[in-house]
Amino acid sequence: MSNKIPTRIYLSEDEMPKSWYNLRAIMKDKPDPMLHPGTLQPVTAADLAPVFCNAVIEQELDESNLLVPIPDEIQDFYRAYRPSPLIRAYYLEKALGTPAEIYYKFEGTNTSGSHKLNSAGPQAFYAKKDGLTSLTTETGAGQWGTAMSMACAFYDLKLIVYMVKISSEQKPYRKALMESYGANLIPSPSNTTESGKKILAGDPNTGGSLGCAISEAIETAVKTDKCRYVLGSVLNHVLLHQTVIGQEAKIALDKFGIKPDIIIGCAGGGSNLGGLIAPFMGDKIEGKANARFIAVEPASCPSFTRGRYAYDFGDTAQTTPLIRMMTLGSGYMPSPNHAGGLRYHGMNSTLAKLFKDGLLEAKAEVQTDVFDAAIQFMKTEGILPAPESSHAIKAAIDEANECKKTGKKKVILFGLSGTGYFDMTAYTSYNNKTMNDQVPSDADLEKGFASIPAIPQG
Amino acid sequence: MSNKIPTRIYLSEDEMPKSWYNLRAIMKDKPDPMLHPGTLQPVTAADLAPVFCNAVIEQELDESNLLVPIPDEIQDFYRAYRPSPLIRAYYLEKALGTPAEIYYKFEGTNTSGSHKLNSAGPQAFYAKKDGLTSLTTETGAGQWGTAMSMACAFYDLKLIVYMVKISSEQKPYRKALMESYGANLIPSPSNTTESGKKILAGDPNTGGSLGCAISEAIETAVKTDKCRYVLGSVLNHVLLHQTVIGQEAKIALDKFGIKPDIIIGCAGGGSNLGGLIAPFMGDKIEGKANARFIAVEPASCPSFTRGRYAYDFGDTAQTTPLIRMMTLGSGYMPSPNHAGGLRYHGMNSTLAKLFKDGLLEAKAEVQTDVFDAAIQFMKTEGILPAPESSHAIKAAIDEANECKKTGKKKVILFGLSGTGYFDMTAYTSYNNKTMNDQVPSDADLEKGFASIPAIPQG
Repeated sequence: MSNKIPTRIYLSEDEMPKSWYNLRAIMKDKPDPMLHPGTLQPVTAADLAPVFCNAVIEQELDESNLLVPIPDEIQDFYRAYRPSPLIRAYYLEKALGTPAEIYYKFEGTNTSGSHKLNSAGPQAFYAKKDGLTSLTTETGAGQWGTAMSMACAFYDLKLIVYMVKISSEQKPYRKALMESYGANLIPSPSNTTESGKKILAGDPNTGGSLGCAISEAIETAVKTDKCRYVLGSVLNHVLLHQTVIGQEAKIALDKFGIKPDIIIGCAGGGSNLGGLIAPFMGDKIEGKANARFIAVEPASCPSFTRGRYAYDFGDTAQTTPLIRMMTLGSGYMPSPNHAGGLRYHGMNSTLAKLFKDGLLEAKAEVQTDVFDAAIQFMKTEGILPAPESSHAIKAAIDEANECKKTGKKKVILFGLSGTGYFDMTAYTSYNNKTMNDQVPSDADLEKGFASIPAIPQG
Repeated sequence: MSNKIPTRIYLSEDEMPKSWYNLRAIMKDKPDPMLHPGTLQPVTAADLAPVFCNAVIEQELDESNLLVPIPDEIQDFYRAYRPSPLIRAYYLEKALGTPAEIYYKFEGTNTSGSHKLNSAGPQAFYAKKDGLTSLTTETGAGQWGTAMSMACAFYDLKLIVYMVKISSEQKPYRKALMESYGANLIPSPSNTTESGKKILAGDPNTGGSLGCAISEAIETAVKTDKCRYVLGSVLNHVLLHQTVIGQEAKIALDKFGIKPDIIIGCAGGGSNLGGLIAPFMGDKIEGKANARFIAVEPASCPSFTRGRYAYDFGDTAQTTPLIRMMTLGSGYMPSPNHAGGLRYHGMNSTLAKLFKDGLLEAKAEVQTDVFDAAIQFMKTEGILPAPESSHAIKAAIDEANECKKTGKKKVILFGLSGTGYFDMTAYTSYNNKTMNDQVPSDADLEKGFASIPAIPQG
């Protein structure tokens, strides 16, 4: 293949973004504000101060500054593993026989195995800057916990990770990896917190849940001196940090005069999707481009495609501020057969707003179809994709096949958010044909919706 | 950090090497030839034809062409995951407080997790070109088996991997990864071959060995129509393919006018080390440079530092040609406590010759020291290193600390051959302080030496 466009496009360090891209600043209709659950008034910086670091709170509430400068120290952190490659999927295109051009931004070349490190670094840096000595967080599938473990090792901070108990048992290697970076792993629920003890008292054999782990992490952060809590998705400051993905992709494409027609990302809480699409969506809002944007979620946790646009809690213990988002209800639990992440009940407020306003499409995929796509991808492009990222692969292949039918040569960009090294149990179940697709019934969803608080939705 | 030299240096596709670098062509004293074990005469292409592909045999026997053109199709394969980054270890340097400049060539960004893919691709391509439909190989730690699985998926070839039985049981995820690429995994010893049956008859509960798996793979290749055997290290054609590592590193360093003073690689069979040092060693032989070269091996399998320079078999069943190498004897078995690869009894003939001629130094390290270095590295540079690669890290840190003592600003280059995602059991045992160092006694070594054939050693 002798093509003008290289298979892998790397930016030079000089070309890497110097600012994050705050999409909300350019949106005509802003997402609704977070509300204090007691007063139902918009949250203030003071409300969030016991839980989060100062800079993070400022970023969370900032809807006016489009370009937020990345501190030199964080640019230095990014240089430890970025730029990530933008890859032309020549081999996949050939296998599909499509006239489409497919590109993917691959965030899995760092040890955390995903894009999560892009926000873990900044959050650890800001904690250090605030004079903190430790952080708490939760992890389910483990990417975020690994990313925070790496960032805390880099900035010499203590880290407590509440890991969903069943995950810590099923993924001992994820646990070992975080411990190798020096993190303190606590299977959740635990007896280190009141919320953990309460849940254990009710069910001593529970495998735990992400919602419970969040509650434990927040409780410990609030109770501990010089300690705060960090979250890896859902919130707008996390999406802001992740815009290095989309900006790097756009700079690389611009160098070759390529304008994507379709931009695709997988969606759980929304950090990878939001980070990928931000600068492209900005161009669309400004009328400079007219791409389609597609969020792809698991059929087992369909917050975009079957959820409600409502104010809801971020955790199952219902202790967080209320966020207007696409939600299945904080009480919703995806089927235990669902492999990998993307199992959060709600979707970031900015993405939810874009979806409601018709700027962002969404579709849901069942997991055996997703793994079919993953295997086709890994056999042609060579990369073992994370189950999460494979949702985007599935949609990209579908769009490329559509191009084959219509003969149209579209430019498709998708986010390959991570690798699947720690998901081989899921691949084994796919290979052995023991994987099945559990799509929630309407009755299942109604149970989740019942947990959405009955407040005026504006 | 505002430095002229970027943290990560990527070549453009145009800058990637177009030829492999055949170091033997430039050596004044060549390594001794392989011998036919029956006649004790140098092997001919015809001797090797039942086992290996044509191009591979030609490369194995070629001692005259310095630059061996890389076919376009293989350059195309390399572009699927190369160039690999050359990384300036700014963060490690800072942590050590050393005046040394440390660079490492990182081969772990592809899904096989190591440099092994650099030879797997060419070997699969040549098999396809010869009209073959399947290949056989063996794997222990699993990097080579994964790399061949990827290459065979890419070129649509069937692959049978004989995986050391104890490894296939201890590393089910490695197995699942290879199967996801479509490979047929057979725990070795098996009843699919005469050599396997023979070993099982003697000990039905054996966990197997690499030597036994090699024997099974060769037997199946020879017995099967349109099938050949592929090997991932030790032989000179494998080292030839691996010279993309050293050449990319040299091109990147040359761009910035950097000349390494010390070049370090871990050494098992020698493919990573040989590939890294080849073009630099060529310069040394031609008097253009005067770097030191250091091979680092595990103290539990010390073929360089405690082995003999002798003609020996490549497998424990003693069916291969005789290779003049640094060897512990084909009957030598490293302690089962030894984590990771680098457990082969012998060392590539070219490297053995360079060592004997004083051009290459060697040292051995115990594994707890190696894991100490790995943890220091991962906490500063962010990358989870393979246990194998961590031997090179250990030596690089020692040299950097020596520079701190002497105040000399040396330039150190080492090979980071791979990642440790599938080695978390070893990291767990290190973290739990249950890892121990088993250094073979002289008596242990004597047992191995007894298996070296009693032939005239020239």
